[in-house]
Amino acid sequence: MKPWCRIDWGGRPHYAELQGEMLTILDGCPLEGGKPTATNVARSEARLLEPVVPPNFYAAGLNFRDHIDWANREFNKSMGVPSQADIGQRSVAALTGHDSDIIVPADAKGPLHFEGELVAVIGRRAKHLSETEALSCVAGYTLGNDVSERNWQFDDRTMWRGKNTDTFKPMGPVVVSGIDPMNQDIEVRINGKTASVYNTSKMVFSVAHYVSRMSQYVTLHPGDVIWFGCDGPTVPALKDGDVVEVICSAIGTLRNRIRWLG
Amino acid sequence: MKPWCRIDWGGRPHYAELQGEMLTILDGCPLEGGKPTATNVARSEARLLEPVVPPNFYAAGLNFRDHIDWANREFNKSMGVPSQADIGQRSVAALTGHDSDIIVPADAKGPLHFEGELVAVIGRRAKHLSETEALSCVAGYTLGNDVSERNWQFDDRTMWRGKNTDTFKPMGPVVVSGIDPMNQDIEVRINGKTASVYNTSKMVFSVAHYVSRMSQYVTLHPGDVIWFGCDGPTVPALKDGDVVEVICSAIGTLRNRIRWLG
Repeated sequence: MKPWCRIDWGGRPHYAELQGEMLTILDGCPLEGGKPTATNVARSEARLLEPVVPPNFYAAGLNFRDHIDWANREFNKSMGVPSQADIGQRSVAALTGHDSDIIVPADAKGPLHFEGELVAVIGRRAKHLSETEALSCVAGYTLGNDVSERNWQFDDRTMWRGKNTDTFKPMGPVVVSGIDPMNQDIEVRINGKTASVYNTSKMVFSVAHYVSRMSQYVTLHPGDVIWFGCDGPTVPALKDGDVVEVICSAIGTLRNRIRWLG
Repeated sequence: MKPWCRIDWGGRPHYAELQGEMLTILDGCPLEGGKPTATNVARSEARLLEPVVPPNFYAAGLNFRDHIDWANREFNKSMGVPSQADIGQRSVAALTGHDSDIIVPADAKGPLHFEGELVAVIGRRAKHLSETEALSCVAGYTLGNDVSERNWQFDDRTMWRGKNTDTFKPMGPVVVSGIDPMNQDIEVRINGKTASVYNTSKMVFSVAHYVSRMSQYVTLHPGDVIWFGCDGPTVPALKDGDVVEVICSAIGTLRNRIRWLG
């Protein structure tokens, strides 16, 4: 499968396939057999949306040791390294695409942090997969920025505002298949300057382990996404006007600008 | 708007309107202007599905004092009464309809508990609603059973298995408009015997307050559902073969049977 995405074209969402700098409009979702049409659009002229609107949006949260160690020091917490792969959830309503703004409500006190993450996109209905066969249900991978308002994250009873405010979940730019999810360098840049780099090999629980374990209890559906957490510190904090990029050479660059209201 | 539901008819899902014991098939979702067709089906011959497949599935969790007091005693916890209306999340993948089985994995140790709840179904896109205008975005109300495996709920790092295992979220039978969400008696029966009765007037935070507060940070979408928690004890625990009913005279009866594997 060629890299694919979803774009706003003619005021409506369309799936599209990427070849070089050209997008070919598809006649449907590639997870449902969408095929190329005769219509091409220059990538530079298309506004990218989040590549899927997932039926279910899962997130590992804590899945890298250095991030947990850093967060415990930074926020005076005592979060342990998870002893089993328990998945969490995020809101589909919070998703936004590449090059859109991350809009921060005026009453957010911050700090506001990036979390650059690998995202698996489920390609078919699946249940009771072994770890060996788990990756067979993954259609491909994209990138996510698990934007986190730490004051709300730790003070509210749930993470509904801290991690699920509208636009706090940029995802994209494209979905790429045929890559090794356990050996990708993920870099985050703020205003062009490197803030974080880590390799996905450092996951506490692998993509295959998570997918297999989830599938023992939960049916995975086409378009479901699983975000796998990030490693290391997530500083400096994001400020109004900052441009934050999540970069993986095999997938591309997910870029968004912070717009802090008020 | 007449009471409406979603049914499996001819092997495909259809929205339908309820009049007495007859269902009239609609040509689309009533939230998108679906209109009655000339086709009628007896209710007794239709298999009801969850009435909507929500883009986002929200749940208040702790929203009644007597339930919090009971849970603290029962599980030796010290959960406080929430000081603000922070919403939580459940998995769309866990939803099932009226009269379907609640299938419990063989490795669940229990106890398995019912939680009979009022559910608001959002009818239109909405943001920044005042508490006075909040209910104007609600299309109607239905019932939910927030089935909870307490061992997983309290021992896992998240509630992914405890509350979101496949079939753990029965919802239905129909969506009813024009009722007062703050004055409904919700009863739960196990094998025909009353296990719980409470009135929704006892909510810590009202439906209007939750909807208004959520909408300050999160865009509400047509079909989103919000479950409002339950009051009092949720015992006796559910066993294999039990039939559990959530009943509200203004909405109907949501009935499901426990099938405990293994």
